[in-house]
Amino acid sequence: MKRVAVFTSGGDAPGMNACIRAVVRGAVYHGVEVFGIRRGYNGMINGDIFQMTSHSVSNIVQRGGTILKSARSREFMTPEGRKKAYEQIQKFGIEGLVAIGGNGTFTGATIFFDEFGIPTVGAPGTIDNDLYGTDHTIGFDTAVNTALEAIDKIRDTADSHDRIFFIEVMGRDSGYIAIQSGIAGGAELVMVPEVLTPISEVVETLKQGWDRQKSSSIIVVAEGDEEGNATEVAEKISRQIGTEIDMRVTTLGHIQRGGIPTAYDRILASRLGLGALEGLLHGQKNVMAGVVNNELVYTPFRDTIRLPKPINEDLLRMVKILSV
Amino acid sequence: MKRVAVFTSGGDAPGMNACIRAVVRGAVYHGVEVFGIRRGYNGMINGDIFQMTSHSVSNIVQRGGTILKSARSREFMTPEGRKKAYEQIQKFGIEGLVAIGGNGTFTGATIFFDEFGIPTVGAPGTIDNDLYGTDHTIGFDTAVNTALEAIDKIRDTADSHDRIFFIEVMGRDSGYIAIQSGIAGGAELVMVPEVLTPISEVVETLKQGWDRQKSSSIIVVAEGDEEGNATEVAEKISRQIGTEIDMRVTTLGHIQRGGIPTAYDRILASRLGLGALEGLLHGQKNVMAGVVNNELVYTPFRDTIRLPKPINEDLLRMVKILSV
Amino acid sequence: MKRVAVFTSGGDAPGMNACIRAVVRGAVYHGVEVFGIRRGYNGMINGDIFQMTSHSVSNIVQRGGTILKSARSREFMTPEGRKKAYEQIQKFGIEGLVAIGGNGTFTGATIFFDEFGIPTVGAPGTIDNDLYGTDHTIGFDTAVNTALEAIDKIRDTADSHDRIFFIEVMGRDSGYIAIQSGIAGGAELVMVPEVLTPISEVVETLKQGWDRQKSSSIIVVAEGDEEGNATEVAEKISRQIGTEIDMRVTTLGHIQRGGIPTAYDRILASRLGLGALEGLLHGQKNVMAGVVNNELVYTPFRDTIRLPKPINEDLLRMVKILSV
Amino acid sequence: MKRVAVFTSGGDAPGMNACIRAVVRGAVYHGVEVFGIRRGYNGMINGDIFQMTSHSVSNIVQRGGTILKSARSREFMTPEGRKKAYEQIQKFGIEGLVAIGGNGTFTGATIFFDEFGIPTVGAPGTIDNDLYGTDHTIGFDTAVNTALEAIDKIRDTADSHDRIFFIEVMGRDSGYIAIQSGIAGGAELVMVPEVLTPISEVVETLKQGWDRQKSSSIIVVAEGDEEGNATEVAEKISRQIGTEIDMRVTTLGHIQRGGIPTAYDRILASRLGLGALEGLLHGQKNVMAGVVNNELVYTPFRDTIRLPKPINEDLLRMVKILSV
Repeated sequence: MKRVAVFTSGGDAPGMNACIRAVVRGAVYHGVEVFGIRRGYNGMINGDIFQMTSHSVSNIVQRGGTILKSARSREFMTPEGRKKAYEQIQKFGIEGLVAIGGNGTFTGATIFFDEFGIPTVGAPGTIDNDLYGTDHTIGFDTAVNTALEAIDKIRDTADSHDRIFFIEVMGRDSGYIAIQSGIAGGAELVMVPEVLTPISEVVETLKQGWDRQKSSSIIVVAEGDEEGNATEVAEKISRQIGTEIDMRVTTLGHIQRGGIPTAYDRILASRLGLGALEGLLHGQKNVMAGVVNNELVYTPFRDTIRLPKPINEDLLRMVKILSV
Repeated sequence: MKRVAVFTSGGDAPGMNACIRAVVRGAVYHGVEVFGIRRGYNGMINGDIFQMTSHSVSNIVQRGGTILKSARSREFMTPEGRKKAYEQIQKFGIEGLVAIGGNGTFTGATIFFDEFGIPTVGAPGTIDNDLYGTDHTIGFDTAVNTALEAIDKIRDTADSHDRIFFIEVMGRDSGYIAIQSGIAGGAELVMVPEVLTPISEVVETLKQGWDRQKSSSIIVVAEGDEEGNATEVAEKISRQIGTEIDMRVTTLGHIQRGGIPTAYDRILASRLGLGALEGLLHGQKNVMAGVVNNELVYTPFRDTIRLPKPINEDLLRMVKILSV
Repeated sequence: MKRVAVFTSGGDAPGMNACIRAVVRGAVYHGVEVFGIRRGYNGMINGDIFQMTSHSVSNIVQRGGTILKSARSREFMTPEGRKKAYEQIQKFGIEGLVAIGGNGTFTGATIFFDEFGIPTVGAPGTIDNDLYGTDHTIGFDTAVNTALEAIDKIRDTADSHDRIFFIEVMGRDSGYIAIQSGIAGGAELVMVPEVLTPISEVVETLKQGWDRQKSSSIIVVAEGDEEGNATEVAEKISRQIGTEIDMRVTTLGHIQRGGIPTAYDRILASRLGLGALEGLLHGQKNVMAGVVNNELVYTPFRDTIRLPKPINEDLLRMVKILSV
Repeated sequence: MKRVAVFTSGGDAPGMNACIRAVVRGAVYHGVEVFGIRRGYNGMINGDIFQMTSHSVSNIVQRGGTILKSARSREFMTPEGRKKAYEQIQKFGIEGLVAIGGNGTFTGATIFFDEFGIPTVGAPGTIDNDLYGTDHTIGFDTAVNTALEAIDKIRDTADSHDRIFFIEVMGRDSGYIAIQSGIAGGAELVMVPEVLTPISEVVETLKQGWDRQKSSSIIVVAEGDEEGNATEVAEKISRQIGTEIDMRVTTLGHIQRGGIPTAYDRILASRLGLGALEGLLHGQKNVMAGVVNNELVYTPFRDTIRLPKPINEDLLRMVKILSV
């Protein structure tokens, strides 16, 4: 393989730039030409493709976002769109792809291979950590620390006013950010989509806290919790315990997607970018590079797409013990 | 004066602890006994009052929130409440008060002096910077930097996706946080309560940006803007420019009240705490200590309460120039 | 076991407080009385021991340092010292210990058990990550991120002035901090005690960089590197390449020991604190709790003391590839 | 004036990029062509000059360092060097200059005007805050906060070990960083070049602390203190109080020059960049733009160079009171 390309797709995540850098520098090191594609599959369709050198990725390891920009592409979901993309790939003489993104991205890559035979190796870039085949995804550690910083700040004001705070963090189908930031932030309770926490249990926990003179409480809620989002949860509780209690809701929102990546994310992203590139050069296709138990592994896209990533229930148990 | 007390009241602000520390250490230095009152006027009413020493304020200069806790007190608004408070003040032999808070706090202190002759000197503790009589209030600089960090993070993701972001910051009647974080964050536009920005002007600015190939934009909105909060503003704009444009709203919320105070806030809080204490010892009453043009000044509560604090319109002009 | 005690010993590390909290809350949860011992073995000898409750560890999860303070104890190395310590342990009716520290601490605990039969379970608290039996030690992730923040700052000024910077990080016998912060910080070279990097190779790397128009370079040096510390390395290089090149040395020093612990360190510390406590309650002794491949494991002190922890040489290879 | 140029010179400082951005965007706004000169006077001599547009300064407001790079130029100190520089300035048709730097830079600009009539307006860019004519220089607030973060971290470890820490901060002739970071960091003592603090006074302060059971102490030393740098001060003290006391020295070094600029520095830099540019366009020459008492003012270079900037001794008094 003499010429490869790299792109980012789906939601952006801190560390994507470190990953791009590793792909590009890895290619330079191995004497392979490397191109960047802007805005994911959209750029592939439109030919927004340019050659990259070692210098193109100078001074980006510490930057959030993605210099290649990202997008979700409706057109690539159509045969016509993919045909156009293939024509561009051919035009540039690109023989293999590194795709940094999540399952939507990998699904597209699988179909693209079936239709046109262009192999892709993926790197898991999403803050949600909801991908099977890797212990952590690129951006997760940074997102957890961003959520944690916010929780630390809110604890200051919660303590000063004897308030209950409901803090909503990202994670539509996954409680990973909630559970990690909740434990680290000393939350009294964490509500995640994977395990139902009935409102009655929340009320019970709050009451036990008051019995122990705990005057302020923090409850971390994943946006996809079954009992609703943080605002809905707070309203349900308010109906049960009355309005004398001072309760506030805060939704962290998009700050969780940005920011300077942590050391962990930069190193993970570097390993995965290099791993994806070297896998591609060694003939891998339709697989995602991951790090499991500190080893680089490749998992077929069909498994990353199909298999669920279970949450560690030991951690939920720990929340309970640590908030006694 | 041989015995004074200090309390925090109203919304908490980063730097309040540095201010408490300066009051306490100043009192120790001047050989005056000093007491802390918990939860503002509520604690005064309930006698939640305790003696403080130099050691009571060790290792708090860097902490957000307030170790004395804060609250808004309905009971103190009644003559009965204030009578109870006075009885406690008498019981502890307290001859003067340092109140860290805002205009609500200072109004209470004024009435309390009229009724019972207990003098208070105030220190301006509020993130909103909306108090006449001081260039900056305690907590403002930290809140601006917190908002700015969030804007920096959101710019990462805005740039990666070519999005328009509306970021709502605190400031019900005051655009100070909005304008400072907006300039520092390189926002395309800042909307503040003091100056009406018509929706048509926002739309115009966005369109000019697109003409110059600016693909992402950040608009900072103070929560009290006349055109509505950030969500309402975004909806109005969406109606005018159509839905193809990817627009997102994020509300920073309570994280702006917490956090480790900046150097500026710790120094300002120390000066104001010491200034309030020394003013009280020298016979000042019903005044707020402030720093204007780097000089310590005392302004009567009736002025801090009555007089508006104008926003610097030069700064609004600067937003326009810097976003060309 | 009805009564246990916890202490911190050796160099402090961010996350120790989260670990103490987990031990205390775990004990409360399991209905066991728990005591704190101040200043490590010194406090044990002097009886600086006090009962802890759930409330004793409120609001400490986010604080650097250790509320129990730490020290190295010469007296505990003597039979007389240990005898005194045992008398205090007996006096307080303590049946088992959780020791948060490193190999010096564990060596003391082993001898103490041999002499008096008091069992200890350890938790690895040291920023150096040089303990066999756990993937990471408490404080390591925070120290790496602290070093990384410093490298990011120095890169700003290195780039602005076309300078070579030698940055010395902690790690007397271990290159873990150097290699992780070096990769994450985009360093051109990392020098660690485990692998000799000859000065000639450093010179070669710098020259290759100049050939590629790389005008500034960062070299991370572990304090225990064989070629000397950062100042010595810089001088050796200066002798070879002449003095026209602008070279600077900076030693990060003790800031690496402090700071707000990262999410990773707080979660790890919580798991290890709880794991050590529960191990002790289930009859473990003379072992260190660790997390290997995301599983809680117990490793005998004799192994943590005796066995080396190899550095991942793949990471050193990665530095080379990423700096092309 | 139809064509101006901007450059940075001397030591770099956080906020220089925000200042460059304000100059460039201000020029675009006023319809004036603007050029960037790389590496200060060296680039002027070598013709390293390029046209800048609004887009050239996108996404730099938050970055440390200077995109124009900086250098000290020996050649510009010679008549031949300045002649070459003038030829380049003429060649590019540049009619006026904005120089971001310190007194060395301004001295050069004054001579250059005398010889060739090219007017310069300066903006004060240096972390040391040692320039007469402005309350604060660009980069000072960031440097203070960087030093403060380091002090906060070191306090963690000082408290954990009952140690005395000597922390050396930047400021060869100026104690501004020392005094502000010292007050904000709760230091027991601050040693600055402007005021002699005899070693005997340091010893006295430490002893008084011990009498009050203060087990750890932090002393901030400006690098230019009369009693020597931090290491020398520590040695002198060690000779007087003996070696049982655990004392450590840490030198913060170059991290103080880098980092993401604070809100304060970005706003100040924006005001000064715009102020310098508009001053130049309105016919100002050989003056530095500054902000004094929140007003934009212009001070002749001869005054910024000649007049000392006194330190606020009230702040030194405050250190003493706050550390009782």
